[in-house]
Amino acid sequence: MGIFQIEATSGRARLGALTTRRGVVRTPAFMPVGTAGSVKSLSPEELTQIGAQIILGNTYHLYLRPGCEVIDRFGGLHDFMNWQGPILTDSGGFQVFSLAKLFKITEEGATFQSHIDGSSHLLTPERSMEIQRSLGSDIVMCLDQCIQYPADRQTAAAALERTTAWARRCRQHRDEKGPDGSLLFGIAQGGMYPDLRAESSAGLIDIGFDGYAVGGLSVGEPKEMMLEMADAALPMLPEDAPRYVMGVGAPADLVELAGMGADMFDCVMPTRNARNGQLFTRFGPVNIANARFRQDTGPLDPECGCYACRNYSRAYLRHLYTSRELLSYRLNTIHNLYYYLRLMTDMRGAIAEGRFDTFKKDFYINQTAELP
Amino acid sequence: MGIFQIEATSGRARLGALTTRRGVVRTPAFMPVGTAGSVKSLSPEELTQIGAQIILGNTYHLYLRPGCEVIDRFGGLHDFMNWQGPILTDSGGFQVFSLAKLFKITEEGATFQSHIDGSSHLLTPERSMEIQRSLGSDIVMCLDQCIQYPADRQTAAAALERTTAWARRCRQHRDEKGPDGSLLFGIAQGGMYPDLRAESSAGLIDIGFDGYAVGGLSVGEPKEMMLEMADAALPMLPEDAPRYVMGVGAPADLVELAGMGADMFDCVMPTRNARNGQLFTRFGPVNIANARFRQDTGPLDPECGCYACRNYSRAYLRHLYTSRELLSYRLNTIHNLYYYLRLMTDMRGAIAEGRFDTFKKDFYINQTAELP
Repeated sequence: MGIFQIEATSGRARLGALTTRRGVVRTPAFMPVGTAGSVKSLSPEELTQIGAQIILGNTYHLYLRPGCEVIDRFGGLHDFMNWQGPILTDSGGFQVFSLAKLFKITEEGATFQSHIDGSSHLLTPERSMEIQRSLGSDIVMCLDQCIQYPADRQTAAAALERTTAWARRCRQHRDEKGPDGSLLFGIAQGGMYPDLRAESSAGLIDIGFDGYAVGGLSVGEPKEMMLEMADAALPMLPEDAPRYVMGVGAPADLVELAGMGADMFDCVMPTRNARNGQLFTRFGPVNIANARFRQDTGPLDPECGCYACRNYSRAYLRHLYTSRELLSYRLNTIHNLYYYLRLMTDMRGAIAEGRFDTFKKDFYINQTAELP
Repeated sequence: MGIFQIEATSGRARLGALTTRRGVVRTPAFMPVGTAGSVKSLSPEELTQIGAQIILGNTYHLYLRPGCEVIDRFGGLHDFMNWQGPILTDSGGFQVFSLAKLFKITEEGATFQSHIDGSSHLLTPERSMEIQRSLGSDIVMCLDQCIQYPADRQTAAAALERTTAWARRCRQHRDEKGPDGSLLFGIAQGGMYPDLRAESSAGLIDIGFDGYAVGGLSVGEPKEMMLEMADAALPMLPEDAPRYVMGVGAPADLVELAGMGADMFDCVMPTRNARNGQLFTRFGPVNIANARFRQDTGPLDPECGCYACRNYSRAYLRHLYTSRELLSYRLNTIHNLYYYLRLMTDMRGAIAEGRFDTFKKDFYINQTAELP
């Protein structure tokens, strides 16, 4: 039995089961982002209640604060943050590129200055593996080199070559240290050049990983281009392995990408937008600050089963948000993550029943309908 | 059967049961502050879990935002915020004095400018009664005139006379509107002048209320003076009615005041200080940001039964706080309120067993001991 079983397909969409040492993840799966050892505002019990199967932790953040020496005292991130489900950790590559004050990439690794205190650090492929191992990550990501959009072909080619070389070192480091029960995923790069994406994928497959990610998307390119690139890149990855599109996206993106055969997603959109008052519904996104909700005694979505919709009104959610009450961020986050996770459940149901196309059609009809 | 039963005493401390239309409140009782229709960061279920019997809502805040017309749509604050236990609402008097941009007191009432949008409002005793009735308050407070500390005798005397006149109008308004099942409490003023406090109390007793509050304390005077004034003022209030010391205080203050026969308290200290990283423990207050907690895998207080102490370490609480994670405010608030409410439970147990003096002695021994 492999770690990844495909149980049904509908078009290119796949229903799968990914076995990690801390439990099975049903795919397509969305991973709530718990950057600094906490999915912002939520308790682990709430994450379980809303249906989170797996969460994502950020290596870059946790390495800088609280630091590995702290998390080591707990034997890893799970006990530190009191979450016993699977955790995928990113490699730190994207955060070095997007958050560090200064960074310099050499063959050895990425030298960067902390966005917190300006201190200087070197993140090598081997160091990223060590940190993720010490975090107790269940799905470890290879260190990759991210590039800006737009990037010329030469830059993209150089970054992908480095990413492949680093992926090889990650795999080698792991082979030397021996298995710890975690899975290792490679990350394909190649900018917006399909042939470079193909080269990147081939390089990773040649090394061999438990799963494969499409990285370097959602870095500023138009949404159409993101989807086109994923559409080109996903079939380049092994069919029998989990395929993870990193850092994407809006609900419609998840539907599109699952339809292309993507199995895993993470994105700060549901959590970050919750804190900015944007709530996702079957009928599209809603700004809870809208004055029309001021005296609205009904739930945000009467058919939503989340704690916020079952217990509070639009007027109350609006009041909390406009008053900047801390409970607002929490109720909004619960709702948005519940929406995302429910969307994944619904997609899995549609794939299981071979009706993903109908599901997708209905999804768009609802999304463009008026909020009742 | 009156609404307030004294079930035991220990010295001057009283164990009581205050019957409201939404349940019995065991006294001495602490009321978590839910200023704007939310005890900051907590769900109503969490309030119940940590042992909150009754919460406080602020008339001034709720009147300004979301406004009575919104809360009216829900038939009151309980359904608006999803809390079905008793709610005490203050009258707005203290907030006009402490928060409004500008205010002017006349015989008619208090004219003030909103701290939110600068809009102008008139709060009369009758209007305060109407607002609190529309909030569905279970314990309604009379509108009082607060004064600064220090205040000269003439100012204090004038404010207490006005407060008595307003209290009479509050009672009259209530008599005219007929009972709605809520209780009405008068508020004694008189600054730091014991004879004025006596005059204020006598005036309120003459009018007649369900309960009596000592107002105008904790307005900047030295703690010794606050305690002296409460010590003088509390025996002036009817023994068979609940006695509420408003806006106080630190854990030791609650122990002192309960020892003087005070029955009810409210204060932002446990909730506000939680958000500033100060956690209350048996061994005194602790700043969770302290570097000595950085790698500390133990709970803040191993004997504390709160959700935060049962599930998280000092190192994690410190990490969340130094990272400004939203979960920090929530876990800290849960801990501090649990501590306060547990302290009240312990005091009630000590009074029931006639050992309040011993309890108090042990309390101080622990508070000055080193955190293990």
